[in-house]
Amino acid sequence: MSESTMQKIVSLAKRRGFIFQSSEIYGGLRACYDYGPLGVELKRNLKDAWWRDIVHRRDDVVGLDCSIIMHPDVWKASGHLAGFSDPLVDCRNCKERFRADKAPRAEPGSAITYREGGRKDGKKLSGTASDRGYVCPVCGSADLSPERQFNLMFRTSLGPVDPMQEILDRLDNLAGMGASERRESLFSIISASAVYLRPETAQGMFVNFLNVLNSARQSPPFGIAQCGKSYRNEITTSNLTFRTCEFEQMELEFFVPPGEDEKWYEYWRQTRLAWYTSLGMRPDRLRLRDHEKSELAHYAKACADIEYFFPFENPQGEGEWGELEGIANRTDYDLRRHAEATGRELSYFDPEKKTHYVPFVVEPAAGADRATLAFLCDAYAEETVDAAKNDVRTVLRFHPRLAPIKVAVFPLVKKDGMPEKARAILAELLDDGVNSFYDASGAIGRRYRRMDEVGTPWCVTVDTDTLSDGTVTVRERDSMRQERIPSAGIADYFRKRLKESV
Amino acid sequence: MSESTMQKIVSLAKRRGFIFQSSEIYGGLRACYDYGPLGVELKRNLKDAWWRDIVHRRDDVVGLDCSIIMHPDVWKASGHLAGFSDPLVDCRNCKERFRADKAPRAEPGSAITYREGGRKDGKKLSGTASDRGYVCPVCGSADLSPERQFNLMFRTSLGPVDPMQEILDRLDNLAGMGASERRESLFSIISASAVYLRPETAQGMFVNFLNVLNSARQSPPFGIAQCGKSYRNEITTSNLTFRTCEFEQMELEFFVPPGEDEKWYEYWRQTRLAWYTSLGMRPDRLRLRDHEKSELAHYAKACADIEYFFPFENPQGEGEWGELEGIANRTDYDLRRHAEATGRELSYFDPEKKTHYVPFVVEPAAGADRATLAFLCDAYAEETVDAAKNDVRTVLRFHPRLAPIKVAVFPLVKKDGMPEKARAILAELLDDGVNSFYDASGAIGRRYRRMDEVGTPWCVTVDTDTLSDGTVTVRERDSMRQERIPSAGIADYFRKRLKESV
Repeated sequence: MSESTMQKIVSLAKRRGFIFQSSEIYGGLRACYDYGPLGVELKRNLKDAWWRDIVHRRDDVVGLDCSIIMHPDVWKASGHLAGFSDPLVDCRNCKERFRADKAPRAEPGSAITYREGGRKDGKKLSGTASDRGYVCPVCGSADLSPERQFNLMFRTSLGPVDPMQEILDRLDNLAGMGASERRESLFSIISASAVYLRPETAQGMFVNFLNVLNSARQSPPFGIAQCGKSYRNEITTSNLTFRTCEFEQMELEFFVPPGEDEKWYEYWRQTRLAWYTSLGMRPDRLRLRDHEKSELAHYAKACADIEYFFPFENPQGEGEWGELEGIANRTDYDLRRHAEATGRELSYFDPEKKTHYVPFVVEPAAGADRATLAFLCDAYAEETVDAAKNDVRTVLRFHPRLAPIKVAVFPLVKKDGMPEKARAILAELLDDGVNSFYDASGAIGRRYRRMDEVGTPWCVTVDTDTLSDGTVTVRERDSMRQERIPSAGIADYFRKRLKESV
Repeated sequence: MSESTMQKIVSLAKRRGFIFQSSEIYGGLRACYDYGPLGVELKRNLKDAWWRDIVHRRDDVVGLDCSIIMHPDVWKASGHLAGFSDPLVDCRNCKERFRADKAPRAEPGSAITYREGGRKDGKKLSGTASDRGYVCPVCGSADLSPERQFNLMFRTSLGPVDPMQEILDRLDNLAGMGASERRESLFSIISASAVYLRPETAQGMFVNFLNVLNSARQSPPFGIAQCGKSYRNEITTSNLTFRTCEFEQMELEFFVPPGEDEKWYEYWRQTRLAWYTSLGMRPDRLRLRDHEKSELAHYAKACADIEYFFPFENPQGEGEWGELEGIANRTDYDLRRHAEATGRELSYFDPEKKTHYVPFVVEPAAGADRATLAFLCDAYAEETVDAAKNDVRTVLRFHPRLAPIKVAVFPLVKKDGMPEKARAILAELLDDGVNSFYDASGAIGRRYRRMDEVGTPWCVTVDTDTLSDGTVTVRERDSMRQERIPSAGIADYFRKRLKESV
């Protein structure tokens, strides 16, 4: 049986040092991965490209870097936290997550009354109770996930005492209680020191809204961008880094005056889609998919996913659309929630209209690991160089901005001063910030192919002519064309070619 | 009472967007901090400088980026993990952490026998039992920390079931057990899904040693470098980001043939110290402090700390030496521990001598948050510009590589096409990757001072002459000198000045 494309990519990723299974010598850990020497460069280049294009190249966006562990009340206000022991249910219609025991109840199939938006002051609405005897408290839908006893957030404990010790100390006391009292008491022991690993970076931007407004001299429309890890205790798949419990996000929260949100939503949908193609992603494997009304979270006015056609194996064959980034119009929901929870006024004072308003938020939220995987899959190609000789090369056609190694430098042979000259060129490139690699072993053709396989756009060869006339051969990865250029000023030459590619 | 230097730095850090308390609107979270718009740039620049100097500029070091959550057995082998319910003791002599209940015991003050290195096959040694009736199982010392019931590692749970639910389900069962059985059972419930946030990035390099060796075509001496977050549930101080439970490390594990370890240890001690001064840190506030034999961890042959004299307040006044980086000769301890635990041969085959050997490791391990704080403190200055007018300026004298904003661009006035010309210069700089900032508000002198306060090395002013002869004024932060240069090719001009500073 021949290998699938995905199997080949997984195998190349390991063999050449892009992606390893985490703790592999210990048997690995479910859906955790490490980036190897080339993978870490690929992912860094991707994140740097995002930061440069989103933060540095714009004067209406500033950066932020928040701690992963935040105050637990942040997650109460955001809606991510419900009691650990509560039976949680996800509404498939409006995406609300709610406690089944707090939901509006009635006999299965009979009429049920609930409050719009789940709020006490909400309008009374009616629906029909599901088989389980309740509906979503926010939208009244009966299309619900199974009940679950856990939260998607990773919980840990901050402080000098392990709550396990207190559970032990209070075990007899706990055992003397009734079922619901046990639950409550255990929960309060855990809660005393419980903190959570953030499930998204977004909330850090919302709770720092005032800090940024006061220090960065920005006014809406403006954005706060953050790149960092988030954690979700999810069911994971086997498609390499596509869905992992620990993952890195690149999120932008763009704050705009109410009324301008639809315009900016449209702007970011198009701008973000164009970003992927600007880094060389094939347009026919990309799509922008608008969410159906029924898919929207209850606080979102609109949402669209940027999806990539991954070569994942499935029963129908190869290929599956997977989300790279979501762009959402989150309205003023988040700022209002945190304002309510803290009593702080999270608003902007418009000096012209002399009035405060709560900005709306348009959020392009991308996954750094998914994008890295998508660019790796997109770059992968097998190409027949010479059909007669059955000569096929494997090449990663990375955009020069993303390529882990920009330039490889080879001495044609290991003598006559060629290695010294090649090393001098290498040093000049490294000194100029062009990540480069020296290789002197094996036939020159094999060295080219090894560099093709890791996506190095250019190879420079030092040969006999270099020593007499100072020129070197530059071989281009995709066309395999070679040209001779002077070795003097070679760092400038490649800096220009890299800049052209931007 | 006048403000201390540290109070002024904390206040500047908040006001100008370097460092905010995490979740501040929720009352903050103990020793957790967020980097604001300028802080995130400062820390990025620092980490990028490290990566460039350690990984990109050297061809004997490659990068790695491991997941923070690793297989729990990694921490058993590394010695970081002991049962959560075990009374743990730290040996103040050899730094071993051990279970009090497993230590060699005898009546307080009487002779005690223990095995060298704590190993069954270790030589028999004798000492004197402490008041507690035991000694360190590794070195026999009676100089011990108090017993503690918890581990410095943050524990969380990976998987679809919350262990709290299982504790509830088994509560009656647990209550029926004796004390030690309760402890064991609770521990086994927790252990089934327990994973830990790494307390150091180093172990990721050790467990990936073979993966890197096989994919990156390196042989000793070579290094693996990693930059990323680590977590320790420590008692924290109030000195801003000096000691936090969540912190970022920049670690290099440099693998060398046994016998070359002392040479490389010496090399890295000096190389790393020089790195801080190369980024402008004042040499008189830096020192290299060799550990006393008694301070060394039992596996370390030698260790030295690079320390910075922070302006922390203390009972003696201002100023305190604090560790920035530790350089350790870890010998072959770590690779041997993981080889033993996994049964894998973590060694290098020397093709010339045709023999396998386990490399020794020299580890320069730096803290990214501490270094960021040290550079912030080091850059801080108040300078009398004109004593007669009582004119004092606050200036952050960041090295250009570290400065969050490299160039500020000002139109002298908001008319006559100056803003347009200034914006065009800004766009040219941003396009060239030079992080720049536009400011048109307030008197030009005030704008200079605002930029001094955040450490921007250069300000460019567009004035009437610019419109006629194309020149602009470049004002230098430290000397406050101004010169006129052509605005054509301004991106090249600053790129060169930035490169000169590297």
